[in-house]
Amino acid sequence: MTQAANRNLAEAIDFRKNGGVVPVVAQDHFSGRVLMLAYMNRAAFEETVATGRACYFSRSRNALWRKGEESGNYQVVREIRIDCDHDTIVLSVEQRGDGVACHEGYQSCFFRMLKDGEWQTVEPRKIDPAKYGPGYGHHRKPAA
Amino acid sequence: MTQAANRNLAEAIDFRKNGGVVPVVAQDHFSGRVLMLAYMNRAAFEETVATGRACYFSRSRNALWRKGEESGNYQVVREIRIDCDHDTIVLSVEQRGDGVACHEGYQSCFFRMLKDGEWQTVEPRKIDPAKYGPGYGHHRKPAA
Repeated sequence: MTQAANRNLAEAIDFRKNGGVVPVVAQDHFSGRVLMLAYMNRAAFEETVATGRACYFSRSRNALWRKGEESGNYQVVREIRIDCDHDTIVLSVEQRGDGVACHEGYQSCFFRMLKDGEWQTVEPRKIDPAKYGPGYGHHRKPAA
Repeated sequence: MTQAANRNLAEAIDFRKNGGVVPVVAQDHFSGRVLMLAYMNRAAFEETVATGRACYFSRSRNALWRKGEESGNYQVVREIRIDCDHDTIVLSVEQRGDGVACHEGYQSCFFRMLKDGEWQTVEPRKIDPAKYGPGYGHHRKPAA
């Protein structure tokens, strides 16, 4: 896609409502499972469209967050949808690398469910995130 | 669930990070489709747990938003999940009423997709929201 077309797409997104970012839901392209929620600013959106890989904006680090750069757990973007109010995005992605979106080593960040009156972990951890290095995940959410 | 247990569940949610609310993804319990993204404050979460129906917090109206109160398009909550950082919720819901989550009359708020370099509406409107009354939807997002 040309740079100009990419800019026009971003124009349609209301980044102002939420301080320069919009929430982004990443959903597994095959299973439909919600993997994580993160944020994009305009630059992150434009990079995602240009590269076809999910790039978010880390609010804690105040920087672009190229998901998988450190862990290899990147996301190939298959579909991008926008909501009625133009202030939320859904990505349909193929989760690559170890198949975990969560920095704690779970397939999805949503591994805790309300059950019998408490929050319970309802699925196994797939990967020990220590494999990604000693400093991994301390400033990141989810698996960088 | 007792009031006390309900309060303990809310204690685990980090409402401070985002000004008293957390983003909430509502997903169709049967198809897995992402229907909408909204927000909950603590009271909305507690009401949702207590009643089993999705109650959000409207940031524009600064009030609890009992989804479906006006349109009949309420949501029966089947599962509640929380993410690794305790600041985002996913609801698995049965969308009742006319089966539309979006105040524009679409099944999902995410009816526009990036396609051939532009945002395209990729599915039919299911309902004309005018049926819910003349003032419907003007201050609401999505179908109240």
